[in-house]
Amino acid sequence: MEIKPGPLLQQIQSPADLKKLGKEQLHQVCDELRQYIIDVVSVHGGHFAASLGVVELTTALHYVYNTPYDQLVWDVGHQAYGHKILTGRQEEFPTNRKYGGLSGFPKRSESEYDTFGVGHSSTSISAALGMAIAAKYKGEDRKSVAVIGDGSMTAGMAFEAMNHAGVADADMLVILNDNCMSIDPNVGALKEYLTDITTSQAYNKLKDDVWNALGKLPVGKKFTREIASKLEHSIKGMVSKSSNLFESLNIRYFGPIDGHNITKLVDTLQDLKNIPGPKILHIITVKGKGYALAEKDQTKWHAPGLFDKITGEIFKKKYDTPQPPKYQDVFGHTILELAESNPAIFGITPAMPSGSSLKIMMDKMPDRAIDVGICEQHAVTVSAGMATQGLKVFCNIYSSFMQRAYDQVVHDVAIQKLPVVFCLDRAGLVGEDGPTHHGAYDIAFMRCIPNMVVSAPMNESELRNLMYTAQLPQTQAPLVIRYPRGEGVMPEWRTPFEEISIGTGRKLREGEDIAILSLGHPGNFAAAAIRDVRQYGINAGHYDMRFVKPLDTNLLHEVLRRYSKIITVEDGTVTGGFGAAVLEFMQQHGYKAEVRILGIPDRIVEHGTLKELHRECGYDATAIADTLKEMMAEKVKVHLLQ
Amino acid sequence: MEIKPGPLLQQIQSPADLKKLGKEQLHQVCDELRQYIIDVVSVHGGHFAASLGVVELTTALHYVYNTPYDQLVWDVGHQAYGHKILTGRQEEFPTNRKYGGLSGFPKRSESEYDTFGVGHSSTSISAALGMAIAAKYKGEDRKSVAVIGDGSMTAGMAFEAMNHAGVADADMLVILNDNCMSIDPNVGALKEYLTDITTSQAYNKLKDDVWNALGKLPVGKKFTREIASKLEHSIKGMVSKSSNLFESLNIRYFGPIDGHNITKLVDTLQDLKNIPGPKILHIITVKGKGYALAEKDQTKWHAPGLFDKITGEIFKKKYDTPQPPKYQDVFGHTILELAESNPAIFGITPAMPSGSSLKIMMDKMPDRAIDVGICEQHAVTVSAGMATQGLKVFCNIYSSFMQRAYDQVVHDVAIQKLPVVFCLDRAGLVGEDGPTHHGAYDIAFMRCIPNMVVSAPMNESELRNLMYTAQLPQTQAPLVIRYPRGEGVMPEWRTPFEEISIGTGRKLREGEDIAILSLGHPGNFAAAAIRDVRQYGINAGHYDMRFVKPLDTNLLHEVLRRYSKIITVEDGTVTGGFGAAVLEFMQQHGYKAEVRILGIPDRIVEHGTLKELHRECGYDATAIADTLKEMMAEKVKVHLLQ
Repeated sequence: MEIKPGPLLQQIQSPADLKKLGKEQLHQVCDELRQYIIDVVSVHGGHFAASLGVVELTTALHYVYNTPYDQLVWDVGHQAYGHKILTGRQEEFPTNRKYGGLSGFPKRSESEYDTFGVGHSSTSISAALGMAIAAKYKGEDRKSVAVIGDGSMTAGMAFEAMNHAGVADADMLVILNDNCMSIDPNVGALKEYLTDITTSQAYNKLKDDVWNALGKLPVGKKFTREIASKLEHSIKGMVSKSSNLFESLNIRYFGPIDGHNITKLVDTLQDLKNIPGPKILHIITVKGKGYALAEKDQTKWHAPGLFDKITGEIFKKKYDTPQPPKYQDVFGHTILELAESNPAIFGITPAMPSGSSLKIMMDKMPDRAIDVGICEQHAVTVSAGMATQGLKVFCNIYSSFMQRAYDQVVHDVAIQKLPVVFCLDRAGLVGEDGPTHHGAYDIAFMRCIPNMVVSAPMNESELRNLMYTAQLPQTQAPLVIRYPRGEGVMPEWRTPFEEISIGTGRKLREGEDIAILSLGHPGNFAAAAIRDVRQYGINAGHYDMRFVKPLDTNLLHEVLRRYSKIITVEDGTVTGGFGAAVLEFMQQHGYKAEVRILGIPDRIVEHGTLKELHRECGYDATAIADTLKEMMAEKVKVHLLQ
Repeated sequence: MEIKPGPLLQQIQSPADLKKLGKEQLHQVCDELRQYIIDVVSVHGGHFAASLGVVELTTALHYVYNTPYDQLVWDVGHQAYGHKILTGRQEEFPTNRKYGGLSGFPKRSESEYDTFGVGHSSTSISAALGMAIAAKYKGEDRKSVAVIGDGSMTAGMAFEAMNHAGVADADMLVILNDNCMSIDPNVGALKEYLTDITTSQAYNKLKDDVWNALGKLPVGKKFTREIASKLEHSIKGMVSKSSNLFESLNIRYFGPIDGHNITKLVDTLQDLKNIPGPKILHIITVKGKGYALAEKDQTKWHAPGLFDKITGEIFKKKYDTPQPPKYQDVFGHTILELAESNPAIFGITPAMPSGSSLKIMMDKMPDRAIDVGICEQHAVTVSAGMATQGLKVFCNIYSSFMQRAYDQVVHDVAIQKLPVVFCLDRAGLVGEDGPTHHGAYDIAFMRCIPNMVVSAPMNESELRNLMYTAQLPQTQAPLVIRYPRGEGVMPEWRTPFEEISIGTGRKLREGEDIAILSLGHPGNFAAAAIRDVRQYGINAGHYDMRFVKPLDTNLLHEVLRRYSKIITVEDGTVTGGFGAAVLEFMQQHGYKAEVRILGIPDRIVEHGTLKELHRECGYDATAIADTLKEMMAEKVKVHLLQ
């Protein structure tokens, strides 16, 4: 059944159409926008609760500001579905996050309204400030607005941007969308501070008094300065504590106001638009607003998958047999299991308790599993500090987010050779989240660091054994364990622990002429390919290298003495990755085998299902089989003639 | 002449000796410590002004705290000379920063008093918090103290750590050493805020009143709570604004106090030691304290080189002929020259106006060259924001500091293919600053990112031409230009600009049998080596590849068709670097030449002069010549027999 937007929404093909409406019609726009998001996401999937929470804000921003001349930057972008729908992408919206369809995040190449590509948190203030500085320099009356959540505000980068904004004398508005949530509930001192503000008597008084008073003020450019002053003083006077943190940084603070009152939002933004300099508007919203179940369990409804919008039932495939678990859950259960017998173990996550499944340990051992907020840099160095005291910290960070803490890995962990364990979840292609979230580079950027051990398990059992090995007292090096998003391959995954000797791989299959060296989960693609090409008379060897650093040199010598053709497979960039490590080994030892390197190509890979992307990038089972056949073409020809 | 510490200092071989002294003797310790630093640094070099500024703090900390059981973490570590001298390294101190000698920074492997290795800014609070969390978990009464400057406090990482500390309920003291300086004067809204506090009437009143009042309080464990309360209230009451920024984050704030009053410091620390939870002590110090010239020009005296301690004359070698300039100055003069004719050009530096020589442009065009503070992440993304508006930003960041902004390069610049120009100064080995500052990894971590152009000039003229090319309107990709610390090779460096075609190298010399492919300044070592080995009958080709990404494939095909032996040379890690890129090209095209890859080995390289380190790492002219001879041993033998 085709999903249709409501009648008023259908008329809005761009913000120009929105601006034609009377302010009193905006309620209906918001209702229809919210409904359309519910209708589409329930059937097509995607991020859900965040966009529901900013329906009013989105509508107000495009109503008040002259987009795209004025520039909106959405932090992270989970919340930008309404923005996409109001800016000419209403009909394509059902293609959201699908292969070839709309991106799940704002993206410059998709629309001129998407002024800055996002995905990772806390970039918006820096980007908007850059735009504001440029506008000032060019003498343009262009406004810049950054919309940032209270979760994203905890990352140091946001603070760095405010530290600059406070002295840059550029015209920028930061909207702090305070819903007390990251994907999981927000944590940290800043969150406590913001909660203090919003639960204070002053705020409650504010709700009753201030806006009524403001409603009586004259409106119009002529009175702008007066309004601004009135607005500022009336709100600031009432919420004295709130003014300090941001105003300490020389950013004028306004709020907090109710982010679901469209009329208030429009009026406030219209006033703020004419106040020069850096300023912040603190709005209070409810993540999932308008969909009761989502309001109640915001983490679950952050990105729930497909669901029945009437009953709220989230659809799950049903199977007759046990299915393989998600790698993240293997991590979550295994760290708890290990921590139960090893008191040195701690878990650290930067704002991903659910996504990493560290939550399993946090629920049982709240003192030993810590969410530090969206603070990857701090997450790594606090882990390093703990490691100096003999603790064994499993610091779990998604591969692409680990890019945020690269220096901390080099400077605080590797140079000092501290035995921190980095579990890089979502390593390799991640699917629908696309380019910002693909964990494509970690093999390359980790293996160039001295002292690092870099490993990737081929399956659940291997992940467990690597984690087991990592926490043994004798393992005294920084150790990376990278594993992918999604499910593994072993329904019976709770295998007994076995120590793995650091830097050793496994011979899975001996063959003739050609061998596959695989790293991590694509080993399963390789095994399938090898089975497949037996019919063509190809008898390929298979080696699960397990470590890209240190390489298993014994195994490599064995392989390179035996085989003249080698295929390497990895779920990472082919530039400087595992394949390159094999080439370096060959160069050092004078081996001259013919090598093919399969992995993520050296270009930006867009979004799609994992299956579609592995296919496109040429390292799924079919592509590996094709490579085997191509490299063994002579033998295949002979075999087929027999 | 041997430099001798003063008589009292000579008796202090560890903090235990210091603790034996009466409080009234600490003045003399401070005087002698300051003098010894002046005596040694004037003759042996090193960082100067920072350590002079914390002589009293250092003495007080070791006097009051039970180091190394209690853990001191020095942020950056430029200021830790006094700490080294008081903790058993008095006699070795003249070996500071010399090959095989003491490190210029705290270093775990050097002393148990160096609890956390530092070098880059803003790691100390995270590390100390990690230690405090561990102590709490283990039930140890161990104290953790982080000493951090107001400059380091501007980096987001420090904010992330405070956001966690405010809710972690761990026992940690942060000492904010406020001297209004990074290496250059500190900038940003936080600095303004701190200045407000310290210049306020309240602070001046404080100087007169509070400490007198506190002097009359009873001392002793019994009265701790009382003192703490009194201390807190008396100071907080007087400086109301100051309490807010830090207290907003739930960190108890004390101060500001005079950081050069040793008695006050000792008394305050003794009281603070017994106050549980996270707390911050704000002290005011003068960088360079006690050496008048340094107090007056703190940037110049940050690390002045050798000088006459009596006259203050900084020694500079005198030459009869013009000498090559520093690469940083070529950058500084050239960006100004280009900006004069191209209004799109901006310069951004994170707190390195002097070190990068962007100051040359800042002085002439203050609106177009911006110091954003120690904020690498923000520096990159604000540059990206500006680039969306058509500006051409040269974002100048030292190679090792660029590790701080890796995600921003990937996520905000490369994925969106924004034409930001990254000038990576101090790329390659940096000499005396050692492992934390070696720019060893940027080739590897940059070239694995799609869309990036990565280049390295062989000399000053090439640097100018790369910068010229980067700012041309048709150059629309993110572009890295990496160049080393120190001087180039061209006394006459102001050559006319020439456009360089992106991804093209230069054939410098055609040879037989063997060729050197060099990237960047080691091309000069290669040229010298090639001249040197002619006497052995070796006629080597030489190709300055100039770009590691994209590679000049035409030139590489030419080289690999012509030569069977190849040496690659780069001032970067051999793991995944330029040499690996050449191997990947060979693999893709089936070339089988014998290759030797010279560069920084895959281990932590310590400090020393550049000459010593290039030698040790085996890619100076001698090492390259040796490699040429070794690979051409047969030919050399024949030649020598002729």
